Amino acid sequence: MRVVAAFDSFKGSLTSREAGEAAAAGVRAAVSGAEVVVVGVADGGEGLVDALLVSGGREVVVDAVDPFGRPLRAGFGVLDDGTVVLEAARTIGLDLVGTVDTSVPLRASSYGLGLQLAAALVSGAPRVLVGLGGSATTDGGTGLLAALGARLRTRWGDVAHGNLLPDVLAIDALPDLGRVEVLTDVTSPLLGPTGAARLFGPQKGADDVHVALLEAQMERWASLLAAAAGRSVADVVSTPGAGAAGGLGAALLACGARLLPGFARVAELVGLAHALVGADLVLTGEGSFDAQSALGKGPVGVADLAREAGVPVVVLAGRVAHPLGPTGDRVDAAFGIHAGPLPLSEALDPAVAAAGLSAAAGEVARLVARSVRGR
Amino acid sequence: MRVVAAFDSFKGSLTSREAGEAAAAGVRAAVSGAEVVVVGVADGGEGLVDALLVSGGREVVVDAVDPFGRPLRAGFGVLDDGTVVLEAARTIGLDLVGTVDTSVPLRASSYGLGLQLAAALVSGAPRVLVGLGGSATTDGGTGLLAALGARLRTRWGDVAHGNLLPDVLAIDALPDLGRVEVLTDVTSPLLGPTGAARLFGPQKGADDVHVALLEAQMERWASLLAAAAGRSVADVVSTPGAGAAGGLGAALLACGARLLPGFARVAELVGLAHALVGADLVLTGEGSFDAQSALGKGPVGVADLAREAGVPVVVLAGRVAHPLGPTGDRVDAAFGIHAGPLPLSEALDPAVAAAGLSAAAGEVARLVARSVRGR
Repeated sequence: MRVVAAFDSFKGSLTSREAGEAAAAGVRAAVSGAEVVVVGVADGGEGLVDALLVSGGREVVVDAVDPFGRPLRAGFGVLDDGTVVLEAARTIGLDLVGTVDTSVPLRASSYGLGLQLAAALVSGAPRVLVGLGGSATTDGGTGLLAALGARLRTRWGDVAHGNLLPDVLAIDALPDLGRVEVLTDVTSPLLGPTGAARLFGPQKGADDVHVALLEAQMERWASLLAAAAGRSVADVVSTPGAGAAGGLGAALLACGARLLPGFARVAELVGLAHALVGADLVLTGEGSFDAQSALGKGPVGVADLAREAGVPVVVLAGRVAHPLGPTGDRVDAAFGIHAGPLPLSEALDPAVAAAGLSAAAGEVARLVARSVRGR
Repeated sequence: MRVVAAFDSFKGSLTSREAGEAAAAGVRAAVSGAEVVVVGVADGGEGLVDALLVSGGREVVVDAVDPFGRPLRAGFGVLDDGTVVLEAARTIGLDLVGTVDTSVPLRASSYGLGLQLAAALVSGAPRVLVGLGGSATTDGGTGLLAALGARLRTRWGDVAHGNLLPDVLAIDALPDLGRVEVLTDVTSPLLGPTGAARLFGPQKGADDVHVALLEAQMERWASLLAAAAGRSVADVVSTPGAGAAGGLGAALLACGARLLPGFARVAELVGLAHALVGADLVLTGEGSFDAQSALGKGPVGVADLAREAGVPVVVLAGRVAHPLGPTGDRVDAAFGIHAGPLPLSEALDPAVAAAGLSAAAGEVARLVARSVRGR
């Protein structure tokens, strides 16, 4: 029996690799002779570095700053071919901000991510992957551009801290980010009801007044970016993912980076489709699987590839929120990993989650092995 | 797709019928055109009446007394063929006793069950099934015999309350219980380390001194029963189930009742083996499934019959206690019914348990349906 374990991270509990290895151990214990391949899964948001490191490479931890300019240590990945993998959530993540209130949109800057990106570019990395998602910022990527040495003229002169978006008057020059691939977990445009300010601003602390202000500032910023890049405003505004991470997508795009859908690019990088050939079962999952999990997220993406390959796919998640609706139809089954009642705090304990996932994976593999033998 | 839902009760939460129907609803919702047969499962302990009523019949509630002689209302089942089904737990159950302390073995009497049995016999029932299991009593069945009009001579004359075991000097006559089948969930003999006093006494409040006393009294009682029944002492002591329900098994046996293993007899009565013919999947389960579930309990019994019939069997339980060891090998898979973390108190809520069981049954059916289609 050949099984592919392709798990997204279980947020707050297991990385993609830890989840995959727990499932693999369960399958091997339950079905003698089972061969299990573990591949990483991520959608461009949190967990990207861990997922890509499943197949090899190393993590490097460096000095950086958080969304408020406070020093922190943050890791990035270096794959075996020298590709550097950055994850926005690790430097400018919303989880790094204490209380999320109305001051956050005014203060949070993408400068810290820019420092890491600058270091990666200087190091000569042949390719830099930047995973957006989970950011605290709505600065249009102004902070990141400042960190990369872009000349942003403001009414106050040189401003390194806080959200520069309200203050930028002009861009003198943009850095060349032709080596950068931007992986996003959303397809949002920069502006409008599904854009950086209006859809994501409230999640990052913006009230109605802030949202309207940010939207107007983003609109002006789009014109500046387009002019500096020699692109159309429509291009900068409407490319899917331009609105990711508070407009960082648009800024990176303007500098020549490519915006790619995170899950599909990760699947390509880890060779998921190849791993599926000839498999008898795919196990996938994430912390919480619900009707919304179809919106570009990992497990449903894995399931779609599995279906194309004709391989049964079962989701194992910390929580499966029934009814799953049409999302449920895209997988063959979905089970929770906890075999009995337990409080949430205990469920999130990595050892508890890993043991539950391991056991559940074993049970699913046993059941499917029976039908494999029956063929 | 043809599915058999054969669930034991989920103690404190769902009856056999409720569990089966919840699973059936989930399967029908998940797999269009699925045909589901619900059959009751019990092992002679709590839930016997509910399980046998799944296929028809009615419940009758009558006045009785609890283990301490206090009035209570308790139901029994009347099947369509007139067979009466009594469940010891409903009149003399340990759950009817408040605090389980050392006074319980001295006070608890099987008299209340005897009242129900007497009524059933007087009613002319062609057959009476008596499910032992879950009793509070260690009275050797003295109370039940007294209620049936057996002449028990005691040093105090006629004693109707409390445990008569220490006081019985002789039996003048035993009632004829040739119409009675006794269904037990244990194979314990009357005496010895796995017998009524030594194995079960401590669970019912007996301390070491009581256990030794009860064992000695049971030994004397076995001689009296054997003499009155014209049987050998070895027969009364060693017939499997003689030690069930505090020695009730031995007393009923001495009166000509047959002691039968509960699960197998219930399976026969509900036609489980017949229902399994041509089925694609059997779903079974109980409140808690663990390594000990193989000791004569429902789901493993269902699994053994399913295996003989070549039908895949999946256990769905409120809690699956991994590792299952060899018990796990007797089923194709075992899953918990709760799709996410939740406290035990909530998990026991019948609506929550039914919804979880329904969803889990649907997921299993979908997965197995895929392999059925693949054949």
